[in-house]
Amino acid sequence: MNYEKFFNEQLLALKDDGNYREFSELERLRGRFPSAKCYNGPSEVTIWCSNDYLGMGQHPSVLQAMHETLDSTGAGAGGTRNISGTTHAHSILEAELADLHGKENALLFTSGYVSNWAALSTLAAKIPDCVVLTDQLNHASMIEGIRHSRATKIIWKHNDLDDLETKLASLPSSVPKLIAFESVYSMDGDIAPIAEICDLADKYNAMTYLDEVHAVGLYGPRGGGIAEREGLMNRLTVIEGTLGKAFGVMGGYIAASAALCDFVRSFASGFIFTTALPPAVAAGATAAIQHLKASALERSEHQVRVKQVRDALDTIGLPHISNPSHIIPVVVGNPVKCKYISDVLLKEYGIYIQPINYPTVPKGTERLRITPSPLHTADDVERLVSALEDLWMQCDLMRTSVAAQ
Amino acid sequence: MNYEKFFNEQLLALKDDGNYREFSELERLRGRFPSAKCYNGPSEVTIWCSNDYLGMGQHPSVLQAMHETLDSTGAGAGGTRNISGTTHAHSILEAELADLHGKENALLFTSGYVSNWAALSTLAAKIPDCVVLTDQLNHASMIEGIRHSRATKIIWKHNDLDDLETKLASLPSSVPKLIAFESVYSMDGDIAPIAEICDLADKYNAMTYLDEVHAVGLYGPRGGGIAEREGLMNRLTVIEGTLGKAFGVMGGYIAASAALCDFVRSFASGFIFTTALPPAVAAGATAAIQHLKASALERSEHQVRVKQVRDALDTIGLPHISNPSHIIPVVVGNPVKCKYISDVLLKEYGIYIQPINYPTVPKGTERLRITPSPLHTADDVERLVSALEDLWMQCDLMRTSVAAQ
Ligand SMILES: Cc1ncc(COP(=O)(O)O)c(C=O)c1O
Ligand SMILES: Cc1ncc(COP(=O)(O)O)c(C=O)c1O
Repeated sequence: MNYEKFFNEQLLALKDDGNYREFSELERLRGRFPSAKCYNGPSEVTIWCSNDYLGMGQHPSVLQAMHETLDSTGAGAGGTRNISGTTHAHSILEAELADLHGKENALLFTSGYVSNWAALSTLAAKIPDCVVLTDQLNHASMIEGIRHSRATKIIWKHNDLDDLETKLASLPSSVPKLIAFESVYSMDGDIAPIAEICDLADKYNAMTYLDEVHAVGLYGPRGGGIAEREGLMNRLTVIEGTLGKAFGVMGGYIAASAALCDFVRSFASGFIFTTALPPAVAAGATAAIQHLKASALERSEHQVRVKQVRDALDTIGLPHISNPSHIIPVVVGNPVKCKYISDVLLKEYGIYIQPINYPTVPKGTERLRITPSPLHTADDVERLVSALEDLWMQCDLMRTSVAAQ
Repeated sequence: MNYEKFFNEQLLALKDDGNYREFSELERLRGRFPSAKCYNGPSEVTIWCSNDYLGMGQHPSVLQAMHETLDSTGAGAGGTRNISGTTHAHSILEAELADLHGKENALLFTSGYVSNWAALSTLAAKIPDCVVLTDQLNHASMIEGIRHSRATKIIWKHNDLDDLETKLASLPSSVPKLIAFESVYSMDGDIAPIAEICDLADKYNAMTYLDEVHAVGLYGPRGGGIAEREGLMNRLTVIEGTLGKAFGVMGGYIAASAALCDFVRSFASGFIFTTALPPAVAAGATAAIQHLKASALERSEHQVRVKQVRDALDTIGLPHISNPSHIIPVVVGNPVKCKYISDVLLKEYGIYIQPINYPTVPKGTERLRITPSPLHTADDVERLVSALEDLWMQCDLMRTSVAAQ
């Protein structure tokens, strides 16, 4: 076995498919988000694909909290949560998150990925004979957590209540069941029928596990997510979220009953055996959550900007997947073309939209995923849409190809 | 199925076993490490169990780098590495890490846990028919990564070259093999025979994967770990480390050939589908690494302090596991007693040493794990040892019990 040769061959295959990823190297300019310094393109670009949806990563109160905590306690946590790594900043953040979701407790992880992976794998592995019913389009972190548990997994059709019910009904009533799904699906921007899924969960005595990663901070009167907006938080067994997107920092969590959180805290390898988040990161996230609990301004401006971009795209006839969320997917349907458009946008227009290709989305649905923020100006929107218009005109071929999707 | 009842029963069982964990809530006092404010004991305590081994989490240059990066770029990365989350700070850190270990490249993860889990699961799953030979005492993150890959796993006896060779020899020569092990084992403090393991790897054409989490920053002329100290870095296929222990911040990485890093970068779910580390965290880690590459002072003072504590324990006849590293395990051998001693140390002496119990160590080997740092003073050492002496005298029962280990 020649290991290096094997790696190189695999990479070559990716390149041949057009699925090899090149990272754009950026340096965001504080106070000037969505502008960033770019190391592999024009010196300054406008970011149109950030998941710091509201620009909270630049918010003065977030930065102040982080500076202050750095000054008062230092850089890292210095240990796992159990071994010297639990600080006051972690406790405050967990209380803030429990309150945000109206749950008894919350439990922090180092990322949203780890929270899904660790919580789902622990619940599904430890509850005897647990069957996990997982939406077909669930995020990789949920898929890997379920896979890791080795519990029986049943995949139901995306957002399809009939299919979910058929599958629930096929299981003996005594079997423990866990329904895992997302509120806002990040690549298509569609939203799950949460109330109806909870109805089914009640009917079949299943637990519900809802990933609100692309909704927390963004929806609901206090930024609790879609479940808050729809008054459903108390009906969900577990609400999972991230601190790295709308809250602008890093980390993940679950919010649930005290017993469930304590159970995961006590048994999840991915929670136990890892250094805790830096206290400054926890403090920054707390500040972001507190701000967005009290202020709806960012959320409403966000929605306004999203509508502006959609309307402008419609005006020039540029097809995008319609959905009830803030995510605007423009499907190109081919990894090479998608990357080409993205490259030209960056190099010639100073607009950064990373092409999204396999494995993030299925092959054949490669796309530009546009995420407007309240900090994009009307002028930014105009420049974006006119650049896209230019490109769609120039690349005649691509225009037809897009229309054919 | 009554889910809440199930969780509560499981938690009760943990409590009955003495294995239920209560986190101590601390707030480290910058500039006064190893002192910390304590929320569940006396107002101020001395930490003797931190994995911020050198106190770098308090180092001015680390904090300055973090403050500056917060000011220049903001809080979070705002996206996955592929989708707007790669910043200049990440690239600089990866270059620094590659240089530290004399490898072509390095790849960052959100934690050491995730680096082990993601890199091992990707390598073992993607290399066709790969067999992983894993040391019996490997860390949970390695175990879970290997488990996740579903590759064939062969456990060899801890640090036992004969057993490893027997197992290597039993495999067909054409089968791809990966030997996974640690340099410093964190709970017993013993060190693997790296050179001999590399000899066996060469003989049987196996890859080697070395976790240097408890060694990076601490050993070797530039803090490259045990493999650097022994001139062996170039013989290892992968060196894995953390940014959350001796480097004082958070994050994890692998350093390896360009092709291997690119392979993991391209295929590892745990790398691809998660928000990147905050740029300020990356900048803080870079500053810590750069400092420790140039300065051996912290490392030598660390070793001096470790020897002082060991000598003082020997003077009072307090048994500890002897080993060639900086970790001083005092085995109590019973979770309830271990927690009792720890509680009294905290409440009556202001000394914080978290009891280490199952599942971090096997049942029956519960321990106090003492980690001296260069910032502990001679006075701190004296107070620690005299407190332990008091306790060992007072708790006659426990003294016999300890002696019986
Ligand atoms: C639906 C979903 N869940 C979880 C995650 C992981 O969250 P984090 O970035 O905090 O690891 C992501 C994206 O990264 C996601 O899109
Ligand atoms: C041997 C070993 N590897 C990996 C890890 C995980 O590193 P991190 O804390 O950065 O997740 C740890 C401890 O946390 C460890 O002890």
